[in-house]
Amino acid sequence: MGASATTTPELDAMNGGDGRFSYAKNSFLQGHSVNASKEKIGEAIAEKLDLKILLSTSKTIRIVDVGCSVGPNTFLAIQNIIESIERKYQAQYLNINQKPEFQVFFNDLTSNDFNTLFSSLPPNRQYFAAGVPGSFHGRLFPEGSIHFFYSCIALHILSKVPEELLDMNSPSWNKGRIHYINAPDEVVNAYATQYAKGIEIFLDARAKEMVSGGMAVMIFPANPTGIPYSQTFTGAMFELLESSLLDMAKEGKISEAQVDSFNLPMYVPSLEEMMELVQKNGCFDIEKMELTSPGVHASMTNTSSMGKAIVMHVRAGMERMLIQHFGSEIIDELFNRYAKKFEEFPHHVLPSKKVQLFVVLIRK
Amino acid sequence: MGASATTTPELDAMNGGDGRFSYAKNSFLQGHSVNASKEKIGEAIAEKLDLKILLSTSKTIRIVDVGCSVGPNTFLAIQNIIESIERKYQAQYLNINQKPEFQVFFNDLTSNDFNTLFSSLPPNRQYFAAGVPGSFHGRLFPEGSIHFFYSCIALHILSKVPEELLDMNSPSWNKGRIHYINAPDEVVNAYATQYAKGIEIFLDARAKEMVSGGMAVMIFPANPTGIPYSQTFTGAMFELLESSLLDMAKEGKISEAQVDSFNLPMYVPSLEEMMELVQKNGCFDIEKMELTSPGVHASMTNTSSMGKAIVMHVRAGMERMLIQHFGSEIIDELFNRYAKKFEEFPHHVLPSKKVQLFVVLIRK
Repeated sequence: MGASATTTPELDAMNGGDGRFSYAKNSFLQGHSVNASKEKIGEAIAEKLDLKILLSTSKTIRIVDVGCSVGPNTFLAIQNIIESIERKYQAQYLNINQKPEFQVFFNDLTSNDFNTLFSSLPPNRQYFAAGVPGSFHGRLFPEGSIHFFYSCIALHILSKVPEELLDMNSPSWNKGRIHYINAPDEVVNAYATQYAKGIEIFLDARAKEMVSGGMAVMIFPANPTGIPYSQTFTGAMFELLESSLLDMAKEGKISEAQVDSFNLPMYVPSLEEMMELVQKNGCFDIEKMELTSPGVHASMTNTSSMGKAIVMHVRAGMERMLIQHFGSEIIDELFNRYAKKFEEFPHHVLPSKKVQLFVVLIRK
Repeated sequence: MGASATTTPELDAMNGGDGRFSYAKNSFLQGHSVNASKEKIGEAIAEKLDLKILLSTSKTIRIVDVGCSVGPNTFLAIQNIIESIERKYQAQYLNINQKPEFQVFFNDLTSNDFNTLFSSLPPNRQYFAAGVPGSFHGRLFPEGSIHFFYSCIALHILSKVPEELLDMNSPSWNKGRIHYINAPDEVVNAYATQYAKGIEIFLDARAKEMVSGGMAVMIFPANPTGIPYSQTFTGAMFELLESSLLDMAKEGKISEAQVDSFNLPMYVPSLEEMMELVQKNGCFDIEKMELTSPGVHASMTNTSSMGKAIVMHVRAGMERMLIQHFGSEIIDELFNRYAKKFEEFPHHVLPSKKVQLFVVLIRK
């Protein structure tokens, strides 16, 4: 048995609370992904989820949001999943008086602000709610206990930064960069290997936790084959952050060594990489795996207010990590610089591209 | 179906965080109760919990701590329950390679500091942990999903103050008091009726949530028949608080009306009252119901350091409630006065008495 999640040192979660820079107030991009995927999830449930199998061993449907942060997106997504399952139930059963009960587990890192999450739970929710602290790179639930896993914009987070990026004697030393944009193959490979390890652990854990016939829906940033990473939306967001930090290092406001030793614990895989990892795991049937648009269009990001909102989005997601490494004094200046760079950026190359992967798996 | 917990307006939880006045640092009295009950719980599990019945329908044992607050007591209690169940498992089974997994739900009001609870979870725990926000005066879990309920020093909390205590035209108007110590029968009855309603809802909810053969262990303050409430430990703690508030009202530091409209949402039942409520519910076999000592002895409370610790204990538990009603300005003075009164109190009449109820129920 388990709870191995507790052995992995955890990264920092998103900004908590409901203040100006909180995730709760700056998660509209994830919100667009939730909206854009709503119909697709409904279809997957209608077509591929067999409730007769699930309810043969349980009167309760247990749903997990992996990497839920603090809301409100998670509540919208869960509501959509439950409504879709209820519609499927009515289609599969005649006796709707014996409706299943729903138990929803909201999972994120221990440092996630669960107090804010809990206090903003929808008052009239039709499910029993629980919070589960811990990394998804490990076991979180008892064997065979979960019927539906959902994850939106979380699986690109690594359990840790690849160690060789910090090794001055390694060809993977990531000097002058905070990610793998425009980096030598060794750096990209170090990231890719770390990511593959993490997803293997993730899939292995979920396979143990799910019941046969259970469904996993995962939405996360992906890199369309043939398009340079720096020209994707995620890539561009990180490159502008790197460039802001390098400017500040040049001016002596932070040290070069500080930038050298900072690396974003994130990786954006291709469809092919993910396909290979799921097949290697072997416990799941792949019902769907396709590149989609994140639901944010070039016309939207072209407005100044949207630009500002995107900067706030990056700040909500990364501020804690940046403060831990660089200290809190530089944060305001860093994001002012970042905002300026963002304004000058050629937005038309950006989010109309299909840079998200929508994956539906069924546990064999 | 459910989640009716969400319809009850919730009271404030204990002080969160780990600061000077936090529950985490001032819960030694509950700690004594945990220690004093450790053996009794082990015995109850060894003698009365039938794991063959429980594990015939589940590979996982699901345990709940109802009213867990933020730790550390809840972790000690849960550890003891799990170790006792594992011992029983070894006694009941030959094949110990198929050990059950444990999932533990930590429940308390939504205003409980779950962030502190989660960050202090034992790193090497042998169970999957989840937090469940919501009042125990309502449903918290799906039907037939829980094998073991535990609650220590929580069930004396009412879901709300009886309304008639605030009605100037009612014989239950509780003028000049904050509780029912030395109050007319109408006030005591209003409290008792509210308590009975709450426990009926509690037992009804737990009966639905538990599997047949599941066990509930509940420890809470109780009033030994024939002893005036004011002479019990809990009664005395509240009377000294009342007296401190009345002194401040006399000096005009708070208004009399403020004291009149403040009533503690707590009730301490007798064994007979609880027995009747469980029998009325009808879903449980009463395996044990006895008055016990809380594990704090007169000799311990007679020391000055213990006296100070008890004052801190009361502050950790009630500060939020008092601030909400009286404002934060008066709190330091109130507890200074309380501490002085406590020093002058005849401690020898106190906690050697059996003022806790230890209850073991089995779901029919």
